[in-house]
Formats: sequence, C-alpha cells, structure tokens
Amino acid sequence: MTSFRLALIQLQISSIKSDNVTRACSFIREAATQGAKIVSLPECFNSPYGAKYFPEYAEKIPGESTQKLSEVAKECSIYLIGAYCRVGLGICYDMRFAELAQIYAQRGCQLLVYPGAFNLTTGPAHWELLQRSRAVDNQVYVATASPARDDKASYVAWGHSTVVNPWGEVLAKAGTEEAIVYSDIDLKKLAEIRQQIPVFRQKRSDLYAVEMKKP
Amino acid sequence: MTSFRLALIQLQISSIKSDNVTRACSFIREAATQGAKIVSLPECFNSPYGAKYFPEYAEKIPGESTQKLSEVAKECSIYLIGAYCRVGLGICYDMRFAELAQIYAQRGCQLLVYPGAFNLTTGPAHWELLQRSRAVDNQVYVATASPARDDKASYVAWGHSTVVNPWGEVLAKAGTEEAIVYSDIDLKKLAEIRQQIPVFRQKRSDLYAVEMKKP
Repeated sequence: MTSFRLALIQLQISSIKSDNVTRACSFIREAATQGAKIVSLPECFNSPYGAKYFPEYAEKIPGESTQKLSEVAKECSIYLIGAYCRVGLGICYDMRFAELAQIYAQRGCQLLVYPGAFNLTTGPAHWELLQRSRAVDNQVYVATASPARDDKASYVAWGHSTVVNPWGEVLAKAGTEEAIVYSDIDLKKLAEIRQQIPVFRQKRSDLYAVEMKKP
Repeated sequence: MTSFRLALIQLQISSIKSDNVTRACSFIREAATQGAKIVSLPECFNSPYGAKYFPEYAEKIPGESTQKLSEVAKECSIYLIGAYCRVGLGICYDMRFAELAQIYAQRGCQLLVYPGAFNLTTGPAHWELLQRSRAVDNQVYVATASPARDDKASYVAWGHSTVVNPWGEVLAKAGTEEAIVYSDIDLKKLAEIRQQIPVFRQKRSDLYAVEMKKP
C-alpha cells in the first residue's frame, strides 16, 4: 500500500463522557465511509482537558471507551491511531522533543501523529511550526488532532488539526470548530522527496547520532 | 555581556574577487559604526557561487582575503563569524541536519549562524522554516547570511538573510537586494524562554540522546 487516506477528528468535547464516546464513534463511521483507513481522535477525546478532570474520567485499559472504539474500528475496517505499523505516535508536548521524531524516523516510520491540545499562546507560536519542523527534518508526514475550540472551557484548545507532507507543506488544516480533516498520504511522494534531498544517506553518522538508551 | 548587536552582510557578489573583498570590508566598517559586535558575511562572499568557480577563486588560509578581513575586524573591534565563543557555525545545507544544531546547543551555544545560499526552489520552501525549527527546538538565536540575489548569475541565491529568536519569531529579514541586517541578540530573553518552556531539563536523556562520535 503506497497511499492511503488519513482522517483527524477534531471533536467538540463536552463534560458528558458517554456523549463524547458516542459522538467520536459516529465521526469514525463517517470518516470510514469517506475512505479513511487510519483515523485519529484528539488528545483527551472523552474528557475535558485538565488534570482536575482525570480522576473522574479515567478508565482502565481495556475499559468502556476502548471497548467501544475497538468495536467501531473493527466494524469499519479502519485503524484507530496507535495500532498501525510505521506510524509513530506522540502526545502534544512530545512534539517539542525532536529526538523522539528522529528515533521514529530511524525505525522506519513514515507518518507521525500527535493528538494534542496547544493553547492560545503556544498554538499560534508553535503548533504549525513544530509539525513542519518534524516533517522536513525527518522527511515524513506529520498529523495533529486537536479538540475543537471551546471558549468557555477551563483550558481553551487551539484547534487547527493539521496534516503536513514531507516537504513541509500544509496539506489540510481545520479551523477551530468541530471537523474531520482528511488527507491522502502518498508514500511514493515521500520516497521522491527522500531521493531529491537525500539527507538520510548524507547524515554524518561517523560524527553524531541520535541513539536510544533502551531498545 | 547579556546582549549584543549582530549584523549580517547580504553582499552583492561580482566576478571580481578584489572588489568583493573591498566591498565586504567597507560593509563591515559600516556595521561596526552601527554598533555591531559580531558580523557575518554570506557563503561564498568573494567568489560567484558554483563549483566551477572554486579553482580560480580558492585561497590558502591564511591568504589574501583572510588577511584583509582580519585587519578590518581588528580595526573595528568586532568579531567576524567563526571567532566568537558560544556561536555555532554551519554552512548552508548544514541547516538540514538537526543533529549539528542539537550538539551545538548541548555545548552551550546560544547563537547559530549559517552563511548560506539556498536557491529559488529550496528558498521559499525551507530557508525560513529550517531556521525557525533550529531556533525553537534548541531555544537559541539563529541567523543566516545569504548573498544578494543576482538573476543573471549561474546560481541564483534566494537572499533573505534572516535572524530568528529562540521563540521562533523572525526578528529581522532582508529582501533580495544588497543589505545589512541588524539584530540585537538578547541572552536574557533566551534565558526567560528556557525557563518558560524547560525542554532541556525535561528531555528524557534516560531514553535517548544526540551524541558526538568524536569529541
């Protein structure tokens, strides 16, 4: 498979967990009918964002939410993020650590997905820049899935779920409202870019390297 | 010294080497009178850009050009790039290798300077993005010094010499024409940003690290 469709679900999160999960499932079904093969939910898709909410909303894994998500993924024959080979997964602030993306790229990942929720300070400053940085430096596709913005929430998410290609171009980007972002991931294009600018072959691994401490 | 002025000389390069060097020296003098303490010339400041020119324009070091530049640096009490502590130096394409910048940052560099000449394809796609990536990932100032654009040259440089701060903001940016770019480098601001987003302290060096192979 050299190309496939990715969908990012920029969910509007409410304080009712069962409602969040039901709505997430219905968006997953919609994305599947649009041809998506990999679907990502945002960070904290079933709970308001904030440490004070976690004791009430937390679940064991497997648990109620993962059970529902597994069922819908199976029903729709799609992969929910986390379960697909060659996809590197980080959460939100992980985007700031170039080393994580470098290690994923070394291990053959061609798509990095960061469910995340930047705020109204770090969002405009760094949300898109960090994705484009990770994409160009590692010549991979990068996608972020944010919750939709809720100006009345205690933590106001930036929104703007995005897909960037390995050339650093923004392929698709949501606004602040609830939305599904679709993008066709073309691994032939990725291979072409790696041939045009062969930084992987040219890295001076005799002088430096990013190394895992525990394999 | 917690702040100082940087100047990037976006020189218009001609095919007459002695003229390039003389004009570079007069720009350095002008930058010094404007208070610059560190001055960078562009990549290939004394020769047209292109491998075919190098046999004719190459010099030994020390040689005629370095001699003239040393004299003017001494006369003006400024540092020409390469000679200042805590400044990491790369050339052009080096910007694509995140590892180099990561190692400079590990070693305490607070300003990275890349004399470089991107072209009209890679310039609009990556010139500014790579600088902002290096700046935000390593929380350092990043500056690039390009030759001015000459549409009749065999290699047409992008121009747009730039200074970016550790928050990823473009502080100063030339157009395509010959120019000096000035920017006040504020190391207190750098320290503040490192406190606000303490990625250096938070890096999981127990899990991964960028390492030099030869010290």
